[in-house]
Amino acid sequence: MLNVVIDRFRNAIEKRSVFTYAGSLNYWDMATGGSEKGMSFRAKLQGMLTGYSYEMLVNEQMEADLKFLEGKVDELDEVTRRMLVKTRKSYDDYSKIPKEEVEAFSKLQLEAEQVWEKAKDKADFSMFADYLKRLIEFQKKFVGYRGYEGHPYNTLLDDYEEGMTVDKLDEFFAELKTTIVPLVKAINESSVKVDDSFVRKSYSIEKQKELAEDVLNVIGYDFNAGMLKESVHPFSMGLNPNDVRITVNYHENEPLASFYAAAHEGGHGIYEQNVNTELMMTGLCEGASSGIHESQSRFYENVLCRSEAFWEYYYQRVQNLFPEILKDVSSQEYYKACNKVAPSFIRIEADELTYSLHIMIRYEIEKELFSGDIDVNELPALWNKKVKEYLGLDVPSDDLGILQDVHWSNALFGYFPTYALGNAYASQIAATINKEFSIDEKLRKGQCMEITKWLNDKIHNMGSMKKPDEILELVTGEGLNAKYYTDYLKEKFSSIYDLQK
Amino acid sequence: MLNVVIDRFRNAIEKRSVFTYAGSLNYWDMATGGSEKGMSFRAKLQGMLTGYSYEMLVNEQMEADLKFLEGKVDELDEVTRRMLVKTRKSYDDYSKIPKEEVEAFSKLQLEAEQVWEKAKDKADFSMFADYLKRLIEFQKKFVGYRGYEGHPYNTLLDDYEEGMTVDKLDEFFAELKTTIVPLVKAINESSVKVDDSFVRKSYSIEKQKELAEDVLNVIGYDFNAGMLKESVHPFSMGLNPNDVRITVNYHENEPLASFYAAAHEGGHGIYEQNVNTELMMTGLCEGASSGIHESQSRFYENVLCRSEAFWEYYYQRVQNLFPEILKDVSSQEYYKACNKVAPSFIRIEADELTYSLHIMIRYEIEKELFSGDIDVNELPALWNKKVKEYLGLDVPSDDLGILQDVHWSNALFGYFPTYALGNAYASQIAATINKEFSIDEKLRKGQCMEITKWLNDKIHNMGSMKKPDEILELVTGEGLNAKYYTDYLKEKFSSIYDLQK
Repeated sequence: MLNVVIDRFRNAIEKRSVFTYAGSLNYWDMATGGSEKGMSFRAKLQGMLTGYSYEMLVNEQMEADLKFLEGKVDELDEVTRRMLVKTRKSYDDYSKIPKEEVEAFSKLQLEAEQVWEKAKDKADFSMFADYLKRLIEFQKKFVGYRGYEGHPYNTLLDDYEEGMTVDKLDEFFAELKTTIVPLVKAINESSVKVDDSFVRKSYSIEKQKELAEDVLNVIGYDFNAGMLKESVHPFSMGLNPNDVRITVNYHENEPLASFYAAAHEGGHGIYEQNVNTELMMTGLCEGASSGIHESQSRFYENVLCRSEAFWEYYYQRVQNLFPEILKDVSSQEYYKACNKVAPSFIRIEADELTYSLHIMIRYEIEKELFSGDIDVNELPALWNKKVKEYLGLDVPSDDLGILQDVHWSNALFGYFPTYALGNAYASQIAATINKEFSIDEKLRKGQCMEITKWLNDKIHNMGSMKKPDEILELVTGEGLNAKYYTDYLKEKFSSIYDLQK
Repeated sequence: MLNVVIDRFRNAIEKRSVFTYAGSLNYWDMATGGSEKGMSFRAKLQGMLTGYSYEMLVNEQMEADLKFLEGKVDELDEVTRRMLVKTRKSYDDYSKIPKEEVEAFSKLQLEAEQVWEKAKDKADFSMFADYLKRLIEFQKKFVGYRGYEGHPYNTLLDDYEEGMTVDKLDEFFAELKTTIVPLVKAINESSVKVDDSFVRKSYSIEKQKELAEDVLNVIGYDFNAGMLKESVHPFSMGLNPNDVRITVNYHENEPLASFYAAAHEGGHGIYEQNVNTELMMTGLCEGASSGIHESQSRFYENVLCRSEAFWEYYYQRVQNLFPEILKDVSSQEYYKACNKVAPSFIRIEADELTYSLHIMIRYEIEKELFSGDIDVNELPALWNKKVKEYLGLDVPSDDLGILQDVHWSNALFGYFPTYALGNAYASQIAATINKEFSIDEKLRKGQCMEITKWLNDKIHNMGSMKKPDEILELVTGEGLNAKYYTDYLKEKFSSIYDLQK
């Protein structure tokens, strides 16, 4: 009997994963060159696949099987046990919300994104305000159905980072604020100026492509189990560990953008390429959480590829590809240009140091939205106030402020913090590795693969068998500790800007 | 009640079409550049999608719904009625064969194709003989389950060309034999020799691509509803009318191969791009049959793009692209080179005149296989005898003979005749058009689109709402009549080779 139920349960999950795969392929195809006229059908298909996936999850058989298996947890193997926990969460999330409300919400999301685009184009938040209000109302109601512990926002945080809470994040961001805000101020007032004029010249797109491929090879992305293509916004997509694709885009005057997009998406890609293939089609063959995923992309992008040691080794290749522009530029100068601190309005263009401040602004606002009765019309003023406080800038218009991100138009609340957590996890993991061997030494010798192998073994392989905090504990011996991240930032940027540490 | 059943029935078919779409996308992705390591998973996924598609078709609900609807045929709209007929056929085909046998057969097919590849590499039929024998036995047993009228082979013919029978094909091929065999002989003995040395020189692949795109535009393929890519074997794939993709491959010394692959696949593509979009997701939004599909590809490839009139208009473009090779070659000479008759061993390399003889050989053998007890070990000798008789060639080895095609290793019996039927349909359709306006005149003026529009209206639009013989009757006013095809061949090749007509 037990085996029959396990088989039925695992088959249902396997079938769901086929729909997910088909949906991913459909999205990939659309983003990387599907025909124009085929778009509307693809959107329809995506909706249908989501519907089938829902049907496979929410039904009486599944309800009965989940209950039955929960009564036999001790008799289940480790993988099935973890599948059970994850499926129960999805089941409850979906089944507690009335279907009509889910549909009305989906419809609103689609409309809201379109309205947001227009509002952003016109830099006019008032056009979008009412939609945002209704999206928030929906999410509040859903949180009500789903229940919460401590703070209503916790339920949403947990969607992207299992176990994350407002209490933990308050402490985390407080630490960040104490360190980063004064550091940015000190850099602004420093007499040291970083010259990055040479990375704003014209870099041939063909050579940028060559470089993107090269750096991906160096860090350990496997082209036999993936591919690099172009799309408007860079992304990575893991169909399964043998097929993890990434995209980048290229602009002639922004060589660093494509290079770091490759390193970043490559980090996501390396993660998924190295999950244990035995987890395929269990729903566990993916990154453990948004935060852990982001920790890997940031690790490759920042900790490795924005480090001084990396550029000591790698700069020669860039110089050889672009001798005319870079003949008089040293690796030190190039390294500094890659790390120039310049507070800016737009999150996705932010430098490594100020990036998490952008996240903090969003976190604080989201938390307030779900705490009380803040009026959406007050949001732009609130946003601008925080930008002034943390980044020292006056926001001139909503498109450079509160309207810049697509996330809220999709009611994606609770996601932003995972970007900052990813940065912090990356530093914490780096500190652990440095206890075993020096990352910088490996980088200086071009031995990136040894670092990648370490990550494969300790983190990538287990997929989402463990929760993010369990992984952190297992790998680094302690829970989230922001100090590794703030120390790393202080050390690095004090040195570049010649500040007293 | 009726509407409830209709909705349930159509929803099931719609869901099947989503699986088909996902499978097609998966295949496309694999054929046009999917990662190497991802292959095995893709094959597994394809199998799972086929399984789900089977489950959506063969179940008690569907059985009950089919019966119910068949009792209310007069109350159904035209589309649902046609869906019912097509679904009933698939349902019976699938449900009459025991599931274990289907699975054993699928497994054998997979193995057989691998064995066939090796046997072909070694040019040794004996390696493959036993597999072929077992595949034939399976198909015979299946025909037994499924039933047949007249001749057992009829059931297989009907799978690809609804309504086609041995009686009709015997008559058809007899007519072809009487005309083509002596024509080929006369050409071999003719003193006229066609020079095609200039199409065996080195043609830049980039320019071949340009030309392929250009000819596709000229004949009316819509790049906004499709794309042209490369794959090892050219193919076309219609996901839906707004997304019909084609592939070609390029070899430096074979400019005609890529050009005619583009015209051929373009013909398939134009067909599917112009099916009425209201038929999407009904299972009817595709070509009416393999033969009708092939008639469209052959129409564009041969009737249009291998005609003298076409080259009068189009040759200039080719000459401009390759001035060094073609500066002293006239359009007449180029036209003749495109139509050089040279009996050869390999079907897919055959010229227009001898092509259907290759099909006749396969048809005659398949028919015998399903009539009686022919020993598979006798097949190579039988094959070689027919090649000698129809093409005048001595087959030197099995890879150039009976092992050349993949079809039989997949137990694809009954499919080959549709290639010859396509040729004949194309000529019959051309004769009808010529009664309304002169195809050649349009071609000389570069007005291909007017011909394409005619085909859109009369044939493409209806998808598979009608059977092939109904379409032929509707469009040309009569059933299959081989004379149009044989007259066309006599006329064209007598003129090129200066024979008495």
